[in-house]
Amino acid sequence: MSSRAVEPAASRLLSVEELHARLREVGEQRYHHQHPFHLLMHEGKLTRGQLQAWVLNRYYYQSRIPIKDAIILSRSDDPNFRRAWRKRVLDHDGENSPEGGIERWIRLAEATGLPRDQVVGCKDVLPAVRYAVDAYIDLVKNRSLLEAVASSLTELFSRDLITLRMGALRRHYPWLSGGLDYFEARLDQAPADAQFAFQFVADHARTYAEQEKAINALREKCEILWAQLDALYYAYVQPGWPPPGAFRPGE
Amino acid sequence: MSSRAVEPAASRLLSVEELHARLREVGEQRYHHQHPFHLLMHEGKLTRGQLQAWVLNRYYYQSRIPIKDAIILSRSDDPNFRRAWRKRVLDHDGENSPEGGIERWIRLAEATGLPRDQVVGCKDVLPAVRYAVDAYIDLVKNRSLLEAVASSLTELFSRDLITLRMGALRRHYPWLSGGLDYFEARLDQAPADAQFAFQFVADHARTYAEQEKAINALREKCEILWAQLDALYYAYVQPGWPPPGAFRPGE
Repeated sequence: MSSRAVEPAASRLLSVEELHARLREVGEQRYHHQHPFHLLMHEGKLTRGQLQAWVLNRYYYQSRIPIKDAIILSRSDDPNFRRAWRKRVLDHDGENSPEGGIERWIRLAEATGLPRDQVVGCKDVLPAVRYAVDAYIDLVKNRSLLEAVASSLTELFSRDLITLRMGALRRHYPWLSGGLDYFEARLDQAPADAQFAFQFVADHARTYAEQEKAINALREKCEILWAQLDALYYAYVQPGWPPPGAFRPGE
Repeated sequence: MSSRAVEPAASRLLSVEELHARLREVGEQRYHHQHPFHLLMHEGKLTRGQLQAWVLNRYYYQSRIPIKDAIILSRSDDPNFRRAWRKRVLDHDGENSPEGGIERWIRLAEATGLPRDQVVGCKDVLPAVRYAVDAYIDLVKNRSLLEAVASSLTELFSRDLITLRMGALRRHYPWLSGGLDYFEARLDQAPADAQFAFQFVADHARTYAEQEKAINALREKCEILWAQLDALYYAYVQPGWPPPGAFRPGE
């Protein structure tokens, strides 16, 4: 079955509970908590170099998040929506200093032993990770606002994953413990953001077709997250072949 | 070393021969003739299902080529350039009937046993392949015309690869022999196209910085081709984990 397959015909508007259940189902099947790269991480089976590759590549994703949110901001003509959504840009960029999610991610990278400049420069990001993240930017730019907002709903699932991850990182990679502030902050931020976004989707998907589009946007976002870990696994775990010119741990 | 690393300082304009040599060097190091997926193909070690996955996914790339070339057409204000470049759209779409590169690729897919509709629908394309191909469209849309044209210069290297591939496919997968018209046609088309594009780049890159941009565009195109094969290898060879919902041979 394809990710873009059409669902069985149904034209009845889903109730809020049904919509929620359908979104949850997408998460259970496709969210990256099940990705083999994360499973290895949580079992303590990644080397320091593999963790560096993850942090380095995911920095590119982190660095695009406030840009993605600024695009969504720019697409709404509702000051109430914009006021609420603006918080996301602030969460990542910081209030008046760079004390936000991006800075915290850099500190996580530094805790793995990577120099700040190498991370921020993004020169060592795998091309495939770059393409996937840029596809996310494309999605929020070129689809409906409803779909752009719905694509953020992976945050419905992130709290459980972050909780699991923080425990695993502390247990298996104690040398990383000083770098976990990013995740600590997301434990509160993500569920509040997800709740707001879900309410927006529930209110603005007024036909079954629109609800399907929202569900599909979440599915596509899951694909975008999954593809990043596929690329990491291929390059740095098995077969372990980074493309010509890419980051090689320890070099 | 990163693919986006800056070359050692040099400000002297390269001669046409030096420029050609620099482009060739990129090809030797980064063109996908060296990719492990192609090596397996040429050694006859791919299964029919793996070949199907390749043909199916690469169809998405093939289907975007005339769109990519139409974007390049739209960006030139020189009728002479457009007249020459128009040939590429025709080569893929056909003259008055669909008898062009896209149709020939579909026939290759049919020779592997895939139904035409499954190929043309593009529903089973790996998300990572889609992102890489879309990054190519992005490149020709958003960079300079010089870079867009330079990104096509992988055709400088394609004749050798196609020659090798046709021999290998005939030898190792004789059941495919009836589907090789696509490659047969490209043997003549690609070198002519590459010659025109190279001349354009040589004429229009008037500073060393512009020459560097052209070389870098070719490098990025190589990354785009390479990433598609990485995704295929990961999903269908080793570890052999297609993402949730993706094509599974024989299903």
